[in-house]
Amino acid sequence: MSPLNVALIGFGNVGGGVARLLLEKSERLAQRAGRPIVLKRVVVRDPSRPRAVSLPDGMISSDVREAILDPQIDTVVELIGGTTAAHDVVMDALAEGKDVVTANKALLCTHGDAIFERARTAKCCVAFEASVAGGIPIVATISQGLAANQINSIEAILNGTSNFILTEMLAKRVAYQDVLAEAQRLGYAEADPTLDVDGTDAAQKITLLTRLAFGTKVPLSAFPRQGIDTLELADLIYAEELGYRVKLLGVAKRVGSKLEMHVQPTLVRREKPIAQVSGAYNMVRLEGDAVGSLWLSGAGAGAMPTASAVVADLIDVATGRAARTFPQLDLWQSHPPLPIQPPEDIERRYYLRFNVEDRPHVFAEICDVLGRHGISLASIIQHEVPEHDDRAAGSDAVPAIPAVLMTHRAREGQFRTADVELEKLACVRTPRVRLPVAD
Amino acid sequence: MSPLNVALIGFGNVGGGVARLLLEKSERLAQRAGRPIVLKRVVVRDPSRPRAVSLPDGMISSDVREAILDPQIDTVVELIGGTTAAHDVVMDALAEGKDVVTANKALLCTHGDAIFERARTAKCCVAFEASVAGGIPIVATISQGLAANQINSIEAILNGTSNFILTEMLAKRVAYQDVLAEAQRLGYAEADPTLDVDGTDAAQKITLLTRLAFGTKVPLSAFPRQGIDTLELADLIYAEELGYRVKLLGVAKRVGSKLEMHVQPTLVRREKPIAQVSGAYNMVRLEGDAVGSLWLSGAGAGAMPTASAVVADLIDVATGRAARTFPQLDLWQSHPPLPIQPPEDIERRYYLRFNVEDRPHVFAEICDVLGRHGISLASIIQHEVPEHDDRAAGSDAVPAIPAVLMTHRAREGQFRTADVELEKLACVRTPRVRLPVAD
Repeated sequence: MSPLNVALIGFGNVGGGVARLLLEKSERLAQRAGRPIVLKRVVVRDPSRPRAVSLPDGMISSDVREAILDPQIDTVVELIGGTTAAHDVVMDALAEGKDVVTANKALLCTHGDAIFERARTAKCCVAFEASVAGGIPIVATISQGLAANQINSIEAILNGTSNFILTEMLAKRVAYQDVLAEAQRLGYAEADPTLDVDGTDAAQKITLLTRLAFGTKVPLSAFPRQGIDTLELADLIYAEELGYRVKLLGVAKRVGSKLEMHVQPTLVRREKPIAQVSGAYNMVRLEGDAVGSLWLSGAGAGAMPTASAVVADLIDVATGRAARTFPQLDLWQSHPPLPIQPPEDIERRYYLRFNVEDRPHVFAEICDVLGRHGISLASIIQHEVPEHDDRAAGSDAVPAIPAVLMTHRAREGQFRTADVELEKLACVRTPRVRLPVAD
Repeated sequence: MSPLNVALIGFGNVGGGVARLLLEKSERLAQRAGRPIVLKRVVVRDPSRPRAVSLPDGMISSDVREAILDPQIDTVVELIGGTTAAHDVVMDALAEGKDVVTANKALLCTHGDAIFERARTAKCCVAFEASVAGGIPIVATISQGLAANQINSIEAILNGTSNFILTEMLAKRVAYQDVLAEAQRLGYAEADPTLDVDGTDAAQKITLLTRLAFGTKVPLSAFPRQGIDTLELADLIYAEELGYRVKLLGVAKRVGSKLEMHVQPTLVRREKPIAQVSGAYNMVRLEGDAVGSLWLSGAGAGAMPTASAVVADLIDVATGRAARTFPQLDLWQSHPPLPIQPPEDIERRYYLRFNVEDRPHVFAEICDVLGRHGISLASIIQHEVPEHDDRAAGSDAVPAIPAVLMTHRAREGQFRTADVELEKLACVRTPRVRLPVAD
C-alpha cells in the first residue's frame, strides 16, 4: 500500500519524540498501520538551531505554506502550540484536504468549532488524542471503547505539574512556593507555570472531554475554576488528618438534566483511586451507564508519552480508522446539549478552615452564620494550642487559632451568602479557606 | 446508511445485557455507529424458558444454522461460552462471510489459530474486546491506543472472583473456604468456581493479551500457573505486615530476548496501584517503550460491563473500524515470536513461610540450605509465641511455630532444588509456603 506522508509543524519536545518514533521505529509502525508512515517534512522557525533529534538532510525548513501545499503530504501534525499560528496551520491544512493530528488543547478549546466544521466540510479528520492526558488513550476510550455507554460522570487529574506539586508539598511538608521552585528546577514545571497551576490547563482539558462525552460546548467562564497556586500546606495536612487528599480535580457530571462542572483543589477520600495518584501522573475516572466505573492512569505529559498518542493517531489515520471515527464524534451537537448547572446551584460538601480568635463564643458565632444559611456540620477539628505559643503574635492582641470544619452537602449559593457574613465577624481572621469535597 | 443486522447466539447474563443495549439504546448506538445496529435474531437452546429481557415476537429461536445462514444477518455475536458449540458457531459464521463478535476467551485460547486464519481468509473480522477484563477496553488499548509502542510488560489482575475473595479474606480475617461460600451466595463466584480460583481463567486471559502485545502464542502448559484456592489467611496477614498485598497476578514481560510469564498469587508492594485494587475489579498495567506505564481498571465481569465491550465491538464493526483493525493485529506471527523463558530460569524475590520446630539451630539449618543454593535473605519475621500456647499441641512433641522469610532475587530452579532439601529437614513441618514477590 502507498505510504502515508507526514509533515511535522513544530519540532520541540513532543515533535522530537514523534520524529524519533517515525524515523527509528518505522518498521513497527508500518506493520501496525498496514502501510509505511513516512516523515517527509519538518517545519520550524529556525532550521539552523541545533536539535536533539537528527533529521535526514533537506527535511527541515521554515516554510509552513510550502509544507502544507506540498501535494505529496497527506497528513499535517500540528505541534507548535498556542492559538494563533497553530490555528492557521490547521485551517490551511484542512482547506488543502489534508488530515490533521494535533496535541493542542488550547487551540481546540478556542477554535474547535471552526476547525471541526472545516474538517467536516473538507471530509478530512482531526485527531487529537494527545491533546488531553498525554499518553492515556482517553479520547479513544470515550469515543470508541465506551461508545455503547451514556457517560454520566468524568472525574480527573489532568495537570501533572499540579499533582506533582501537591504530592511533594504533603510528602516533604514544604510550602507551595518552595516546591514550585524545585519543580521548575527538575523540569516538571515551566518557567512560567501560570496556566498549569491556576487551573486553566486542566479546565481546557475537561472542556474537551466534556464536549466528547456529553456533546456540550462549555466556555471556561461558565464553571468554577481554581488552581493550586493559593493552597497552603496546612490544608493538605488537615485533609490528611480527616482521611482525605487534596487533588486538583476536574469534574463534569450529569446531575438531573444538567451538567455540573468545576476544576478546583478538592478533598478526595484517601482510599479512592484518584486520591492515590502521586507525582506527575494523570488519572481519569469515567462512569458509564453500562460499564460502571473505569479508571485510566498514566503519564499526562512528557515528550515520549505524548508522542505515543500522536503516533497512535497517525496510525489511525493511516488505517482509515480515523476517517470512520471523526464524523461520529459528538462535536456538532446534533442533539440538544446538556445545559450547564449554574455555579451557585452546585451542591457539595465543603472543608472550611478559619483562623479564629481564641476566646469564648467563637464557634457559636460561626455555627450560627452557617446554620442560618442551612449549612450543617459533619465534623470539627480544633487542636489545643501549646501554652507557650498562646500569646506569641503580640501581647495585647487576642491570639488566633485554626479551626477546621467539614460540612454536610449544601449549595454553593448558600456558602457564598454565608461567606459575606463570615467575612464581617470580628472573631474570624484571614486566611479563611473553603475547599469542596468530592462525593 | 443500511443497518447492521445482528444475530445473538446465547442469551444468558451477558446476552441479556447486549440485547438490552441494542433494543433500548438503539438511537444512541445508531448515532455513534453512523447507522442503525439492529438485533434481528436471538438463538437459545430453549426458547420457551422465561427471560429477564423481553424480546419482540418471533425474534427468538433455537436454530443456530438458520440464524447464521440468514442472508440478512451481517454479524454474529457468540455468547454461548465453552469451546465446542461456540467453535462451530464462530467457524460457520466466518465461512458464511459474517463478522464475529465474541466474549469467549477459552474459545480463542483453544481454537484461536483456526478462527483467526479463517477470518483472514474470509476477509471478515473477529472482535473480542469483551473476552478479557470485561468492560475495560484493554484489547483496543494494546492494539490501537498503544500501537506506537513496543509493549515491554503486562501485569494484571484479570479474575474478579479471586480478587474479591482475597480482599474479603484480609478485610474480615476469614479463611478461603468461608469467603468462597459467601461469594457464591452473593453471585461473585459460580457454583463450580474451579476455573476462576485455580488460575485457569486468568491464565487464558493473559495468553490472549500476550498474543496481542508480543505476537507470541503461549500454551497454558508453558508457564507457572497457581490459583488462590490453596492460599491460607496467615500469608495474607504476614504479607500485610511486610508492606505487601497478595494478588492473583498475571504477568507477561520481556526479559532480555525472552518472554517471562506466570499467573500466581504474588506479593505486591502495598503502595502500588495494583495492590490497591479491591473487590471484584480488574486492573491491567501496561508498560510501553514510548508511553511508559499505563493503568486501566474497572469491572472485569458482569452483564452490563461485558455487554458494554460487546456493543463497542459491534459499533466498531458497523463503522468499518474493526475491518481495518483486525488484519493489523499481531495474530499471525509475521515476525519471529519471543521465546518463552523456561520456568526454572524465572528470577524473582520470594516470600517463604515455614512451620518450624521451636528449638535451637532451626534457622541455621534452613538458612544453610538456602545459602548453599545461592538464595540470600532480605528479611525475617518470627513472632514470640505466647507462653501458654507453647506446648498446646501435645505434651511430648516439640511445638511448631511459623517463620516468614523474604529472599533476595534468585531463579525458580534454585528454589526448586532447595525445596527438595528443605522437605527433608526434620525441623520443617507442613505447611510450607512459597509465593513470588512482584518487582
